Amino acid sequence: MKKLINDPSNVLAESLVGVAAAHPELTVDHFNRIIYRGEKTRAGKVGLISGGGSGHEPLHGGFVGLGMLDAACAGEVFTSPTPDQMQEATKVVDSGAGVLHIVKNYTGDVMNFEMAAELAEAESGIKVESVVTNDDVAVEDSTWTAGRRGVGVTVLLEKIVGAAAEEGRDLTSVADLARRVNAAGRSMGMALTSCTVPSAGKPTFDLPDDMMEMGVGIHGEPGRHRVPLAGAAEIARQLVEPILADLDFTGGPNIVMLNGMGGSPLIELYLMYGEVKKLLDAAGVEVARNLVGNYITSLDMAGCSVTLLKADDEILTLWDAPVNTAGLRWGV
Amino acid sequence: MKKLINDPSNVLAESLVGVAAAHPELTVDHFNRIIYRGEKTRAGKVGLISGGGSGHEPLHGGFVGLGMLDAACAGEVFTSPTPDQMQEATKVVDSGAGVLHIVKNYTGDVMNFEMAAELAEAESGIKVESVVTNDDVAVEDSTWTAGRRGVGVTVLLEKIVGAAAEEGRDLTSVADLARRVNAAGRSMGMALTSCTVPSAGKPTFDLPDDMMEMGVGIHGEPGRHRVPLAGAAEIARQLVEPILADLDFTGGPNIVMLNGMGGSPLIELYLMYGEVKKLLDAAGVEVARNLVGNYITSLDMAGCSVTLLKADDEILTLWDAPVNTAGLRWGV
Repeated sequence: MKKLINDPSNVLAESLVGVAAAHPELTVDHFNRIIYRGEKTRAGKVGLISGGGSGHEPLHGGFVGLGMLDAACAGEVFTSPTPDQMQEATKVVDSGAGVLHIVKNYTGDVMNFEMAAELAEAESGIKVESVVTNDDVAVEDSTWTAGRRGVGVTVLLEKIVGAAAEEGRDLTSVADLARRVNAAGRSMGMALTSCTVPSAGKPTFDLPDDMMEMGVGIHGEPGRHRVPLAGAAEIARQLVEPILADLDFTGGPNIVMLNGMGGSPLIELYLMYGEVKKLLDAAGVEVARNLVGNYITSLDMAGCSVTLLKADDEILTLWDAPVNTAGLRWGV
Repeated sequence: MKKLINDPSNVLAESLVGVAAAHPELTVDHFNRIIYRGEKTRAGKVGLISGGGSGHEPLHGGFVGLGMLDAACAGEVFTSPTPDQMQEATKVVDSGAGVLHIVKNYTGDVMNFEMAAELAEAESGIKVESVVTNDDVAVEDSTWTAGRRGVGVTVLLEKIVGAAAEEGRDLTSVADLARRVNAAGRSMGMALTSCTVPSAGKPTFDLPDDMMEMGVGIHGEPGRHRVPLAGAAEIARQLVEPILADLDFTGGPNIVMLNGMGGSPLIELYLMYGEVKKLLDAAGVEVARNLVGNYITSLDMAGCSVTLLKADDEILTLWDAPVNTAGLRWGV
């Protein structure tokens, strides 16, 4: 295993030390492994929390800041954070307006966030709403998931709902918007290579040199099928077609993300975006905004995913609103 | 070779198609392979051009926009652009105030930019100044370089000098600043793995599983030495010590970049930054600003580099000035 790490069992803790050093504008709680904005939640603003296993950076810690999250709870690599972490974050970011939990649909995350919400409500009287993202069209159930997995739409949702919370909307309205965004988004990913979890020390799965995994999960969970290695145009087709078959994206503007899994360089991601855009143009799918880069990754996995989100004027206005995080920044 | 590409000989052209699709705010000249800002250079503003072989993205095309470059000339992967490209870009971005060429010290780039400058001056009467970056402390001469290689400081220079050009400073002043920034910066890189050039189809060099290459160049050129694989703290020491031995960074503020080579995930880059910051603190080197991420890459190489730049109030003010590019964005 070749990684820029020290002790494989200490990667998260040491990475958080680097986050704190690089971002004095954030507050890192090293004991609870929570990344907060540097300033307390403004009175009346709904608090936004997400979190999950580490190894998907910049998600979620890189999306803490003005216009996105108030806090991100970091679990060990590919391991859910604990209810204690989520409860603590909920207490800290609540300004009295309540807290929204943004949860990717993995069994551990869902269970732990549910428990945290119950504890925060029971012990501290905090109003908590939750949205569970489940945008991955690849498979219905998976290694750690009942139902569809939550993947790329989580990034777009955190941006859009974050802007709505900055506007001062109330908890019910923010939660309803979050559910509406999740319902309007679909994703599909693929891997050219496995990732390697530091504590395991070897690739999560074996993928022959002439094969690729279509529909892979962000922890290397099996996808739909393994198929012979193909060119970018064919890969794009195998990603875009299942998405378009699952939801009608015509007739209005959309936000598209071409996301890298962590080990694929930007020159390839742009090339892939060109292929995806051609297919969307041919299908009459209008792209109003796009992101190309590494936003929800799987450690060092080579590969990419495509996310489409049906937008409207409200969603585009929220998308364009100022955001100031390590992972996304504009308008400030 | 597992890559998100179609024809290995067509990677650059197809990636530029994706860049154009993703960034309607830019103008891509597909024939000449030049990325421009969407708007003509403002009258009186010095034009800033850089360029070089592709495979280092976001450098340089990702740094075209307000506050940084006016144009980037893209060569084939790891191959210098031609004088024709550079001459064309020089003509297009000149507003009458002259043009600065920002050139990384590789023999082909230096020769071709020199020829382009002479042609632009002789044929179009454009005033051209050049700065050649040479911040890599690893080796004195290298595979494609006489003298030191130009690496990470190029990113910081394009930002700082870009801000000075936006202020309306004249060509001599902008070029002098560029040379001052280059002289104040030092870098050192390392590789855990080779990169693979698409047209070659196999890794550029062989690196055993238990070895790493210290001082590697951004095209996989040999560094100082191969040493046994070590932990992040030891890697940081082997990168930072040669930099601090080469120039005194104490006694004032500095800008530090922890750069990924393209194949190392962000969780590792932050961990590395934490290690680098500890060493700088111990050495009494003040860090006023930092960047952590993939800024000057080597395709899919796993590894990282460290760049230090001695700053002062003027440089920090220029650093903080608005920038609006795909690769760096703040203040807008």
